[in-house]
Order: sequence, then C-alpha cells, then structure tokens
Amino acid sequence: MSKYVVGVDVGGTTVKLGMFDVNGDVISKWEIPTRTEDGGKLILPDIADSVKKEIVAHNFNAEDVLGVGIGVPGPVDDKGVVHKAVNLGWDNDFSLVDAMGRLLPGMPVKGGNDANVAALGEMWKGGGQGCSNMVAVTLGTGVGGGIIINGRLVNGSTGAGGEIGHIHIEDNETEACGCGNYGCLEEYASATGIVRLANRELAASDDPSVLRDQKVTAKSVFDAVKAGDALAIRVAEKFGEYLGKGLAIIAGVVNPEVFVIGGGVSKAGEVLFDYIRPSFEKTVFHGSKNTRFALATLGNDAGIYGAAKLVLEDA
Amino acid sequence: MSKYVVGVDVGGTTVKLGMFDVNGDVISKWEIPTRTEDGGKLILPDIADSVKKEIVAHNFNAEDVLGVGIGVPGPVDDKGVVHKAVNLGWDNDFSLVDAMGRLLPGMPVKGGNDANVAALGEMWKGGGQGCSNMVAVTLGTGVGGGIIINGRLVNGSTGAGGEIGHIHIEDNETEACGCGNYGCLEEYASATGIVRLANRELAASDDPSVLRDQKVTAKSVFDAVKAGDALAIRVAEKFGEYLGKGLAIIAGVVNPEVFVIGGGVSKAGEVLFDYIRPSFEKTVFHGSKNTRFALATLGNDAGIYGAAKLVLEDA
Repeated sequence: MSKYVVGVDVGGTTVKLGMFDVNGDVISKWEIPTRTEDGGKLILPDIADSVKKEIVAHNFNAEDVLGVGIGVPGPVDDKGVVHKAVNLGWDNDFSLVDAMGRLLPGMPVKGGNDANVAALGEMWKGGGQGCSNMVAVTLGTGVGGGIIINGRLVNGSTGAGGEIGHIHIEDNETEACGCGNYGCLEEYASATGIVRLANRELAASDDPSVLRDQKVTAKSVFDAVKAGDALAIRVAEKFGEYLGKGLAIIAGVVNPEVFVIGGGVSKAGEVLFDYIRPSFEKTVFHGSKNTRFALATLGNDAGIYGAAKLVLEDA
Repeated sequence: MSKYVVGVDVGGTTVKLGMFDVNGDVISKWEIPTRTEDGGKLILPDIADSVKKEIVAHNFNAEDVLGVGIGVPGPVDDKGVVHKAVNLGWDNDFSLVDAMGRLLPGMPVKGGNDANVAALGEMWKGGGQGCSNMVAVTLGTGVGGGIIINGRLVNGSTGAGGEIGHIHIEDNETEACGCGNYGCLEEYASATGIVRLANRELAASDDPSVLRDQKVTAKSVFDAVKAGDALAIRVAEKFGEYLGKGLAIIAGVVNPEVFVIGGGVSKAGEVLFDYIRPSFEKTVFHGSKNTRFALATLGNDAGIYGAAKLVLEDA
C-alpha cells in the first residue's frame, strides 16, 4: 500500500504545504495564511488542522502518512528545538517536534530550519539530485545556506550550521550587516548587497551606465551585465569576487560535490557562475577545485520538498 | 568476553600502533619504521605482520579483535580510497581498506586521513570528550583540521574535508603557500607561519626584542610573549587575528560546540586563546559566539586513538 509524507514550510506570511508519495511525486500542494498574532500560538494548530483535513479529503488514514516535516525561519537544533523565530512571533525556545507531535497524534514529526530544509529539497528533487555532499546557497534579501554531509543536514550545535551569509569576508567595511558585524558575505552577495555594490560603483565615477536611468535592483544589474554595460559588469565582478572567495573557503571546510545556487538573485542564471568561478578557482584548495556549480530548480517549493524528505531521512 | 580494537597511525618515518579495549583503555602501544622505498609497497604488509604478532603475543584470536583502523597522511574518501600519499611514496589512488583487508583476513578494516583520524581520537578520549560536533585544529609545521558532525568525520567528497589550513584569509600576500595559493591560513597560524610573522615584525622596526638575540621559533615567540616582550606580543596578536578570523568563519559553516587546538604550537598553552578570542568574537555569527576553545590532550597518540575509534564508529 502506498505511503505518503507531508512537508510544511512556514513563512512569515504564508504556510506552504505539500503531500508527496515516498518517491517525491506531488499528491497535492496548498497554502494557508500564517497567523503571527498572540505570539504565533495559532500557527501550529492551524497547520495541524489543515494537514488533517487534507488527509481526510484524500480518503487517507493517519497510518497512510509516514510523518510530517516542518521547516521554520529560525535556528532549530538536532533535537528539534527552535531557538526563537522572530518573524513568527515565537520569542522563546521550545521543542517544535514535541509541540507539533501533540497536535498530530500518531504521526511522527520532524523539524528543521527553513534554509537547511530547502537544501534537503534541492538534494532530493532539485539541482543537487544524486549528490550526498552539497552546499545550498540562497541569494535572496539575505544570503542563506544549507549544508548536507553524507546525505544529512548539518544543523550545528546550536542550530546555526550553514549560516554562511555571516562569514567574515571583508576587513574594511564601515556599514554594519543586519547581524551587527561588519564585512559579512551577505553584505555583498545578497540582492541588497548587489544594490549596495552598484550604488558604490555609481557614486565612484561618472561613467555612463544604463543603471543611472532606472531603479537599481539585483535584476537590473544582471540585465545590464547581459546587455554589456561596463559599469554593471564591474559590479558583477565585485559580487563574484566576494562570493567566489566565500564559497572557496566553505569548500575548504566541507569539500562538497556541488554548490546549488538559489534565491531571487539566481534567476539571473548561469551568468552568475562566470563571475563566481575566477575568484573561487584562484583561492580554493586544489582538492576542491572540481566542485560543481548548479542552479536550484525547485524555487519556492524547495521548502516543502525538503520538509517531506526530513521524514524519510531516518526511515 | 572482552573485545579489542587496533589503531594504526602511519607517518612518513614511523608507524605508531595501539591496541585498545572498547572503552579506549590502552592494552599496548608500539612503533615500527615506515619503509617508504619501492613506492611504499612494504608499508601495509609490515603493519599487517606487526598487528598479527601483537595479537599472538597477547594470546588473543582474530575473533577477539573487532577491527583495525588506519590513518594515513593523504586524502581518504568515504569509501576508504586513498588519493595519493606522497610522503609514503604512494603515487596512485587505491582502496586502503581493501588492500589492508586482504592482508588481515577476517578483520574489518577502516581508513581515514591522519588529521581527521586524530580529531576523532581527541573527541573520544581527549580535549573534545563528550562532544559530538567539534573541529580539531592542528597547529604544526602546517595547519591541519578535522571536522566531526554528529559524531562522524567529515571526509568530504574527494577526501579534502577539513583542509582548513588552506582557507583563504589574506588578499594581500606576496609569498606563496606550499599549496600554490596566496594568503592561506597556514601561512600565518602554523609554526612556520608564526616565524614568518615574527621575521616580518622584526624587519619592520628597530624595536628591541629578546627575539633579536636567538633563533626565532613558534616556541621562542610565545616564551617571549609570556615574558612580556612587546614585539612578540604584536606577533601573537597578528597570529591570533588571522586564526580567530578563520575559526569564526569555520564556526559560521559548521557551528561546532568546541575547537580543540593541538599540534606543536599548542604547547604554548591557553595563552593562545587570549590572542585568538578577540578576532573570533568580533567576526563570528552570534549563533556561534559561545563556541568553546580547548587544548588537545592526547599529543602524538591522538592518531592511534582515533584510528581505533574508526572501527567502533559503525559498531
């Protein structure tokens, strides 16, 4: 008899849910709003109700469901304890796995950090398929990461594994990162970081650029790069120099088979790799020189795939 | 009935061997020379003969021995394949585990890189006891590393996991590292790196220093630091700035509970931490701020302990 897994990706506005068979084929996908009021205490009950309804709607029994995996925007340690998730209103530490388990009697529950869980999704059904050692790099508003070693997520001793957006990469930075430090990778390689680099480049010269006539975004920078705009190309070179150097260091630590690049910035496509590779190859240890670069392929669904895969990790 | 494990640490000159019970108590320790002639083809047969003799000397049978673990100075992947070990004369890839297994019929064999294996030893019976997420940092002629996540070694996809001596840490370096790159952590944090920093500091000024009257070594630098020598203290500050920054990056990637610092330089003692901590704390992601620092305690025996523990990892 077929068995199913449920993956839940909790965002600050919307909870995405998906039901999959054990091969990762989608049975159904749906969304519910994230109710963050009252310290976010409604979020898990809302999810449990929605999961139960979906099971009934498919005429499945609880026994048909191998378990429910859930990814949340905050650090989650190996025991399934969330260490705050400010975007959800959760301001204390609690066991996500126990709390969700009580709401879904008879169903095993697994939990993880959303970026880490998305990495697992990309390994299962996305850009990292077939690999068991990979690093997912999410270039969005910030820079997130998820590290998988021997097929398993590196959550870290306090749930801060894979926080690669905050590795120190520049000694001479005067603007603080959102984390409070100065010179984090995120300050140059995120969508906002690319805008920062572009604004600095625009201010540093009077050189003509199509970027002077429009709102500067990561997208407009890479569109200009593709159109051959010299100033935009200099911005892309700086972005690539920082990111390539950062990924080379990460390769020196965990020696993955592949970096899977996702997030909004990755919509620019493989042109990104042209700018990342030179500094990567210049600074990486020779044993990691052949690490591949691939684009993430699951987009916003990576989280539900990965959350579902969490359940199957120990099965 | 008691069971035993054998740990083998293959160096360029000497092979260290140890027999342990499953609790890690030493039954016997001994050494044999490493015969590197003829492409190192005698090394494994020599080890097998020596292990068999030791088993007989204790009146044990092959069944009393749970297995033999072996650490070698070269990259070893998760399948037990060595990718060259130039110090041993091994210049092609082969399965260390299969080759050793043929020489020791009936005994399971495990293999790993020597620095990684030593890290496992420190976790089992040394400075990292009780931890399951740790990074061992060996400050010797070079800088080596061993990363343990959830109690297991991170060998990496090509055996280059934990090669932390070659993470890029300085953009403005004109002297090449032994690996061919410029600005590797090893160029500043190894024993030879400390001498490099000291010689640069001595050349940069005429300031008095006890280091001007003696051979400059890592030991003489830290002896001078303890005696309050201002120039030596500047050298220690530079060393600590590089190493603290490097370890902060590593913490951002894998978020360990503890860094266990070993190798010849670590004989200076906990004074090292006074120089590492300021830049570590300045640049590390807040989620890893409480990572502990500890000294390695097993010295040259870490390799045999760790090799023996390799056998027990899957038991």
